[in-house]
Amino acid sequence: MRLSSQTGRPLSPPRVIQQTNKRISLILRGSGKDARLPILKSITDYVVSSGGKRIRPLFTYYLGNAHGLSANELIDLGALIEIVHASSLLHDDVIDGADERRSRPTASKLHGNKVAVLAGDHLLSTGLKHLNTFGNQSYMDIFTHAIRALSAAELLQMEYQYNLKTTEDIHDRVIEGKTAVLFEAAGALVAVMRGERNPYASETAKLGHLFGRYFQLRDDYLDYFDSERLKKKGLQDFTGGIVTRPLMKLLQTADRTEKNLIHAQWPGRGRQTSAVDANRILSLMRKHRIDVDCAAELEALEKQILRGLSALPGAAAREVISREFQKILAVRAA
Amino acid sequence: MRLSSQTGRPLSPPRVIQQTNKRISLILRGSGKDARLPILKSITDYVVSSGGKRIRPLFTYYLGNAHGLSANELIDLGALIEIVHASSLLHDDVIDGADERRSRPTASKLHGNKVAVLAGDHLLSTGLKHLNTFGNQSYMDIFTHAIRALSAAELLQMEYQYNLKTTEDIHDRVIEGKTAVLFEAAGALVAVMRGERNPYASETAKLGHLFGRYFQLRDDYLDYFDSERLKKKGLQDFTGGIVTRPLMKLLQTADRTEKNLIHAQWPGRGRQTSAVDANRILSLMRKHRIDVDCAAELEALEKQILRGLSALPGAAAREVISREFQKILAVRAA
Repeated sequence: MRLSSQTGRPLSPPRVIQQTNKRISLILRGSGKDARLPILKSITDYVVSSGGKRIRPLFTYYLGNAHGLSANELIDLGALIEIVHASSLLHDDVIDGADERRSRPTASKLHGNKVAVLAGDHLLSTGLKHLNTFGNQSYMDIFTHAIRALSAAELLQMEYQYNLKTTEDIHDRVIEGKTAVLFEAAGALVAVMRGERNPYASETAKLGHLFGRYFQLRDDYLDYFDSERLKKKGLQDFTGGIVTRPLMKLLQTADRTEKNLIHAQWPGRGRQTSAVDANRILSLMRKHRIDVDCAAELEALEKQILRGLSALPGAAAREVISREFQKILAVRAA
Repeated sequence: MRLSSQTGRPLSPPRVIQQTNKRISLILRGSGKDARLPILKSITDYVVSSGGKRIRPLFTYYLGNAHGLSANELIDLGALIEIVHASSLLHDDVIDGADERRSRPTASKLHGNKVAVLAGDHLLSTGLKHLNTFGNQSYMDIFTHAIRALSAAELLQMEYQYNLKTTEDIHDRVIEGKTAVLFEAAGALVAVMRGERNPYASETAKLGHLFGRYFQLRDDYLDYFDSERLKKKGLQDFTGGIVTRPLMKLLQTADRTEKNLIHAQWPGRGRQTSAVDANRILSLMRKHRIDVDCAAELEALEKQILRGLSALPGAAAREVISREFQKILAVRAA
């Protein structure tokens, strides 16, 4: 167990983000002739500057800080989780001919599929090479497990794309592999740092898992009911043929006529998606109070997470993590 | 140092291939719910049954056997090198809209780009997860280094695609990253198993490097002068806009009129490649004796490799490895 002063004030969120970005740059800067490849420099800059909310490094840092662990190592591990996340986004952005209609300003759009794939590979291997310098077999196991789960979940999601019979069990497995796994990894890494034998059975890993689950279910909720908060067009899951909780719940309660309407709107492989009438789907959702129902599921999960956070030992970090994550957590029915 | 009986007969090549295939299946079989994903099963079967010549596992096994190392660990490491190789092939097969004309029966053609990418990720992470069970930091370093080099070399090659000014230095870096690196990794792993401090400086790593270099230069040679041996249509590098040794040498000796002819035939980004007149390019090559020149370069390299092989300690393995690899090595000017 490497415990630094449990009472030391944690860094502020902007400072954690700044330090994380610096660390990501350092790790990816690379060495030798590769570093001079313009495309790698451009992808590295893209990963560092596009930034996102750095929610995974923030989670890693505060969770570890609450347990009095070394900031330096937490920032490093958080940066590595973010690198894995960025690599997986690059690979998810790869598109097939038929999908090119859904235009997004992704790396694969800017540089082509192949560059996106290879840049993702480069990020990932550079990250793993750095991780290996820790010489910690458990860290490596947590990362390879997570990377494996990410690809399996994406494949599972593709397998069930356009399939209105997607079950809650399938959807749960997708959520766990796609999103929960990297937060769970953060919790498991903290458990390893604390010297716990069974990192995935730890409270921190469980908290990470719940948090990641919440994070994805919230995204799925907002896609239907408050897409402005995601800064994107709504019903992307529906038009992309991805069945999530709201649609699953609607299909469970809709009558035969309503089901026919949903089926008529539902896109198929190679079928135009512009035909979706968002207002009709949304009014069906509201009629059956799916928004209220989904928000209630989120609230129950939120309570569980806040209970977990309140059990963390370090008061100062506990305060920041609860405050920061309540900003994300708070989703109420409109 | 783990030395088993140095005098024990090595396994026959078909037996090494059989054991390698068995090991690849075992490693990739996976566990839990993922294994039931039909697409993963199909990709695993594809990797195991498509097989290829398993030249990397054979090289790993005989190199290690010549040093009296454990067959079990050599087969495992060879299987892992092959998994990394298969994963990198899946990622190289990813195509962009404009390239779809060049039809090849690749995974990306069969299942789409995205499946090829995710299956590659899954192979790679499953392989690394298994590698991590060795708990050997040096092994992991060699693998992450190689994976990084593979993606960097592919990016470098893309950067210089269609560029007739590609230099020998650039081409060497591509060859080293694309092909030499996995043979070099085999040699470095054997060096680690033998307890050498500096695996990349070892004779086995140098031999691997030379061998990989030879293997790629030979492919580049055959693409122009004996493509039947590769069981594919010739001049694929030319029509794909990739500058290799033969073209580089031709450009160095061609006169102005001939250079204009080459430039006129050379494909550009988005330009049709069907215009290439293979016979004209080949007759220019033969006129300038580029085939003889390239074969001489290969022969010099071949001698260096055979010298390296003859210095291996284990007589029986040395015999097999020299015999097997001479089958590949022998390239003579037609």
